[in-house]
Amino acid sequence: MSDPSSSAAPRRAVTLSQIVERFGGQLLGEGGVRVDQVATLESATGSQISFFVNPRYRRQLEQTQAAAVIVKQETVGLIERSLIVCDDPYAYFGRVSDFLNPPEAVVPGVHPTAAIDADAQVHAGAYIGPLASVAAGAVIGERTFLGAGSHVGARARIGPDCRIHAGVCIYHDCSVGARAILHSGAVIGADGFGVAMLGERWLKIPQIGRVIVGDDVEVGANTTIDRGALDDTVIEDGVKLDNQIQIGHNCRIGAHTAIAGCVGIAGSTRIGRYCRIGGAAMIGGHLEIADNVEIGAATAVGKSISRPGTYSGALPMSPHAEWLKNAAHIRHLDRMAHRIRELEARLADLERKRR
Amino acid sequence: MSDPSSSAAPRRAVTLSQIVERFGGQLLGEGGVRVDQVATLESATGSQISFFVNPRYRRQLEQTQAAAVIVKQETVGLIERSLIVCDDPYAYFGRVSDFLNPPEAVVPGVHPTAAIDADAQVHAGAYIGPLASVAAGAVIGERTFLGAGSHVGARARIGPDCRIHAGVCIYHDCSVGARAILHSGAVIGADGFGVAMLGERWLKIPQIGRVIVGDDVEVGANTTIDRGALDDTVIEDGVKLDNQIQIGHNCRIGAHTAIAGCVGIAGSTRIGRYCRIGGAAMIGGHLEIADNVEIGAATAVGKSISRPGTYSGALPMSPHAEWLKNAAHIRHLDRMAHRIRELEARLADLERKRR
Amino acid sequence: MSDPSSSAAPRRAVTLSQIVERFGGQLLGEGGVRVDQVATLESATGSQISFFVNPRYRRQLEQTQAAAVIVKQETVGLIERSLIVCDDPYAYFGRVSDFLNPPEAVVPGVHPTAAIDADAQVHAGAYIGPLASVAAGAVIGERTFLGAGSHVGARARIGPDCRIHAGVCIYHDCSVGARAILHSGAVIGADGFGVAMLGERWLKIPQIGRVIVGDDVEVGANTTIDRGALDDTVIEDGVKLDNQIQIGHNCRIGAHTAIAGCVGIAGSTRIGRYCRIGGAAMIGGHLEIADNVEIGAATAVGKSISRPGTYSGALPMSPHAEWLKNAAHIRHLDRMAHRIRELEARLADLERKRR
Repeated sequence: MSDPSSSAAPRRAVTLSQIVERFGGQLLGEGGVRVDQVATLESATGSQISFFVNPRYRRQLEQTQAAAVIVKQETVGLIERSLIVCDDPYAYFGRVSDFLNPPEAVVPGVHPTAAIDADAQVHAGAYIGPLASVAAGAVIGERTFLGAGSHVGARARIGPDCRIHAGVCIYHDCSVGARAILHSGAVIGADGFGVAMLGERWLKIPQIGRVIVGDDVEVGANTTIDRGALDDTVIEDGVKLDNQIQIGHNCRIGAHTAIAGCVGIAGSTRIGRYCRIGGAAMIGGHLEIADNVEIGAATAVGKSISRPGTYSGALPMSPHAEWLKNAAHIRHLDRMAHRIRELEARLADLERKRR
Repeated sequence: MSDPSSSAAPRRAVTLSQIVERFGGQLLGEGGVRVDQVATLESATGSQISFFVNPRYRRQLEQTQAAAVIVKQETVGLIERSLIVCDDPYAYFGRVSDFLNPPEAVVPGVHPTAAIDADAQVHAGAYIGPLASVAAGAVIGERTFLGAGSHVGARARIGPDCRIHAGVCIYHDCSVGARAILHSGAVIGADGFGVAMLGERWLKIPQIGRVIVGDDVEVGANTTIDRGALDDTVIEDGVKLDNQIQIGHNCRIGAHTAIAGCVGIAGSTRIGRYCRIGGAAMIGGHLEIADNVEIGAATAVGKSISRPGTYSGALPMSPHAEWLKNAAHIRHLDRMAHRIRELEARLADLERKRR
Repeated sequence: MSDPSSSAAPRRAVTLSQIVERFGGQLLGEGGVRVDQVATLESATGSQISFFVNPRYRRQLEQTQAAAVIVKQETVGLIERSLIVCDDPYAYFGRVSDFLNPPEAVVPGVHPTAAIDADAQVHAGAYIGPLASVAAGAVIGERTFLGAGSHVGARARIGPDCRIHAGVCIYHDCSVGARAILHSGAVIGADGFGVAMLGERWLKIPQIGRVIVGDDVEVGANTTIDRGALDDTVIEDGVKLDNQIQIGHNCRIGAHTAIAGCVGIAGSTRIGRYCRIGGAAMIGGHLEIADNVEIGAATAVGKSISRPGTYSGALPMSPHAEWLKNAAHIRHLDRMAHRIRELEARLADLERKRR
């Protein structure tokens, strides 16, 4: 049985008229032109469609060979190409790409090398890849794809229409909703980091909660989400997690929050809905982050945030020699502030006497 | 053969009197009340026991439905519940949880889909999960659990009573002591990062050391510990490592040190005993960190620390607009310091003339 | 079939004369002395050869039992040992180590538990380990070693002489050149993080590019390299990547660049050739980094770098109490700068009146 992990099937083709009919926007150009793929301005050929929003790609726009370009109203007139005019070219482009690149339909079946426990429930419409394993009591939903070498632990439940790539580990008793995408190396439900010092040794605190992942969640490669110590760790619907993110035990990530790569979130922190967290941000434990908060890349968040808005904290880089000179002062800012206060007092004194 | 990766067995139950008998402390309340699980104050039911130490959960304490709460002396009188009074409620709670949630006994056996080399030595009391592999010369100890899809390389030695979860890779010639817990995606013994520029190309330096992991060590999900370049990388007894930690070649981590998630430790650094390293701290190479050092989250450690104590260095986050204004000055602190010195000199001059 | 993942074969032995003949340098001492392994100054025995460059190991140099030490001219006379004198002892040592520790020859064969798709092309001179899987259309080159449990996706191409350790995942359509080394947990070709907000939900943008890895590349344990959104992500020849690095979609890493552990590089960034990036540095998206740039550990790079040189940005650590005092001021630097300007103006005013 082939591993149907991606098609190399002939592409759909669609005319510009059909695109506008389906997704809206205004077509300026030949409705009958056919496109069969999306591409960047730079690499697009005459059967591909591209988009333009970022002004830094102006030169590429002028030189593109794309059959058509999706643009904002303000771009009309800049080039002699067929255009589709809309409010949000990137999202429009995403929809066109999604249409031209549909996820391949799952061909049901169990690879003969997979190890399915006799007490597991694998839906007849699911696909279980080579050398994947499903433990006792686990449930795999309809049209779900379980990639090569992935492991679903005892009593874990995976919903329908999920794509679990090769090499994913889901621990016992965790659950994943519908339409989830889990990338290779993701680990769902390892023990949280709970220890207590008992005399001169660490005592491990049993981690008896689970991880509950909602619907339409994507989890990036090598991202880890720990099971709860007592209550569950919860990833709400529509959350998008990039690669190499660490989410500690008992966190709750609000619906439709997007988190970029290399972010760490310590235990018991609750992140609101529709937040956007930049890459490599580090968020402490037991915090509350409100809805609609945006956190800049490489920012260390050490306290709760109760108001929507953008928060930052990354240090600006400098040439090394400059940095050496400036960084040293950071350790003496308190002294510097004291000297300023002193100067102010002395100067005020002089000014008073002067009058 | 079922994957016995966790029990769903009926719980033990125990009376409050039995708890106090076993673990000490003072019982205030009905000794005959039975509990069968631990829980948070908020979610505990009448057959569960909870604990209280953090004052921010005061409201949850007042509203808890727990059968009993483990508290400090100072909490007595605050609520009308059965209490167990002790000095360290969190550690006490941990012991109760450990008692109520014993690790499941390992059922010996080798899953028929596992690939055990003819020259490997797997103890008859060990369990080897589905699709796990054990290479030639490797040794697996008594009552050790090797999870689905895990790999033990040639001549590696795993002690007794270890729990190696699904998807762990242990490279050739490494060793792991007794009672270790290794979580999914952990990689023990990959090559350290050793290259030398030879003309215009990097030459790879063979990494001929090993990783030696002591007894009672826990290694989190997707944590990586590199083998030594020449001598070994050593993780001493009782070390607790959270997820996504990177430990470079030739490091030595002292006994009973605990390291939170996302920490990176560059090569040849030696960390003392009983250290506590906060999440996302980054520790440079060839450093020596003394015993009993605590390092704050997101701190960059660029030099050795010879005295016990707490060290920090994370930047405080701000609202973005504020940050933009303040961060710019960091790159001009040296100039700022210079201006202060100048002001001081000029003012002193004026003051002198004034006299 | 044994897993030949490392030899425990008897070592080669070589005389000092033969070393100098092969690698150059000047021998001071007995040419007939045989060595069979490299070692640190501290642990070397009388049949091993060591090297000395870092002055902090002076004491170890004086006490070493090594048969010979590779040193710079300036070290001659410090000890009574056989010496090999050369310009770059570390690189010289690397070449000797490489000679004494050759990678084990790959014994061709396919482990009976491996799952090779009928439409895959595995070279007869390749080795496929236990429980590894190769999907339809994939190509595995001559003398390439595919470790236990690794997965090569549909239509992926792996060149000759690669060593892919256990537990690596390579997604469909990606390619890896000759002589690559990929460590456990590396994930090549997972989807980039591409989403667009559509109403109140994230739309996933299909990631239709690939990852193209050049020749002589090493990829560390649990490092992730995302496939391109439209065009490919490219890792050029000779790039060396340590563990737990994240490389976003559409990045291009220039030839012979070396990147230390825990680095994150956001999407569409282009890094030049011969760059050196320190551990835990975080590099933003859509940037251009010139050739020969060195970036310090834990530095956040938020803008492009057009000139070679060294750039830094890590905060210096302090004892916690000091840090508390100083860090607070960082959030008020703008106010501090304002007060200094005010002081300067007032003082100038006083000085003017004084005249």
